[in-house]
Amino acid sequence: MRVVANAAISADGKLSSRERRQIEISGPEDFDRVDRLRAESDAVMVGVGTVLADDPSLTLDSEKRKEERKASDKPGNPARVVADSRIRTPADAQVLDDRADSYLLVSDAAPTDFIAEMEDAGATVISAGENRVDLTAAFEELATHGIEQLMVEGGGEILYSLFEAELIDELSVFVGPVIIGGRDAPTLADGDGFVSEFPSLNLTDVERLDDGVVLKYTVKKTDQ
Amino acid sequence: MRVVANAAISADGKLSSRERRQIEISGPEDFDRVDRLRAESDAVMVGVGTVLADDPSLTLDSEKRKEERKASDKPGNPARVVADSRIRTPADAQVLDDRADSYLLVSDAAPTDFIAEMEDAGATVISAGENRVDLTAAFEELATHGIEQLMVEGGGEILYSLFEAELIDELSVFVGPVIIGGRDAPTLADGDGFVSEFPSLNLTDVERLDDGVVLKYTVKKTDQ
Repeated sequence: MRVVANAAISADGKLSSRERRQIEISGPEDFDRVDRLRAESDAVMVGVGTVLADDPSLTLDSEKRKEERKASDKPGNPARVVADSRIRTPADAQVLDDRADSYLLVSDAAPTDFIAEMEDAGATVISAGENRVDLTAAFEELATHGIEQLMVEGGGEILYSLFEAELIDELSVFVGPVIIGGRDAPTLADGDGFVSEFPSLNLTDVERLDDGVVLKYTVKKTDQ
Repeated sequence: MRVVANAAISADGKLSSRERRQIEISGPEDFDRVDRLRAESDAVMVGVGTVLADDPSLTLDSEKRKEERKASDKPGNPARVVADSRIRTPADAQVLDDRADSYLLVSDAAPTDFIAEMEDAGATVISAGENRVDLTAAFEELATHGIEQLMVEGGGEILYSLFEAELIDELSVFVGPVIIGGRDAPTLADGDGFVSEFPSLNLTDVERLDDGVVLKYTVKKTDQ
């Protein structure tokens, strides 16, 4: 499975303000780029923190792209994937609605009534890992559902966990012309942070878009 | 006074790891760019956090640039400026050595024995603000010492304070091909963080350098 991460950050690396409120970082050209990347993917993933903060639907904006997907025998929208180690996904979250398939990644510690509630809400629940989602195992399971390209849209906690598990192949970052600041504001990669063996990237493309710039990277594999 | 901020960050916006250990983010081409920017400036500023973490000398690497400065009747090295609201600068810090002039910005609450110690160590002490350094007033005082261009090299606390005080005119950011991660790792702009009236930038230049990219911005003035 190919895993492509995408994020929009301020010039100081923040995804949003310390209040977790979404800030206008990019613009229409970048929204269109993100929509295209979604359309090219079999599924779009976020961490549960993003579900709680923004309640995104992760569906396509462009009707034309939905039609093109259908013409290729794909569902109009890519599937949605939520990683939720601490069973915080609300049953009425938009990512669980009937506009697309939904996968919820939980740990083996998730109680059966929570799993039943999520399945009632329409999600396919994938359980892997003792107390935290084992992302490597969960991704292997996702691949058996036909997901060959997975786009990850954040937030900073899930992106850090995915870098830690060496599961990200490519990263696109829109850097917007704004300063958000804040030692507690979420950044592109939060988590505990690396102290050695920092993930190393190859900058493959630089493109000016809206009033900012998109930086595209491939992630170097540690066995290389 | 023209204030130019410069920083090297990881692709996720970090200045260093959560352990405050310096990470190799840029390379020789960017070091040379930074040295050139220092040589063009009358003074180079850091916050006391950077003095404590890295003990930088902030002097020029290039002997040729020192000679060129001297040929223009300037000191070989630009002056050094440290903002220190909580009187933490050690008397043996390299920024206070005799390789260049040194200015220490303190608040009016700084005790006279600390000021005397810093003056003995070679610093010119500028006092402004009740319990925190009033950066606007301190910069006006710096300007009377002939400092027309001030380069600010971080860290994230002083950069945030300067954005808050609307004192930064230009910002250069080298974005390196590495992920550092960490919700507690220092970022380009820390502090409390903005929740409204986010400083807005104009992206004026994008240049690939070493294995990364330099993004150059001017800061939009709020009265514009």
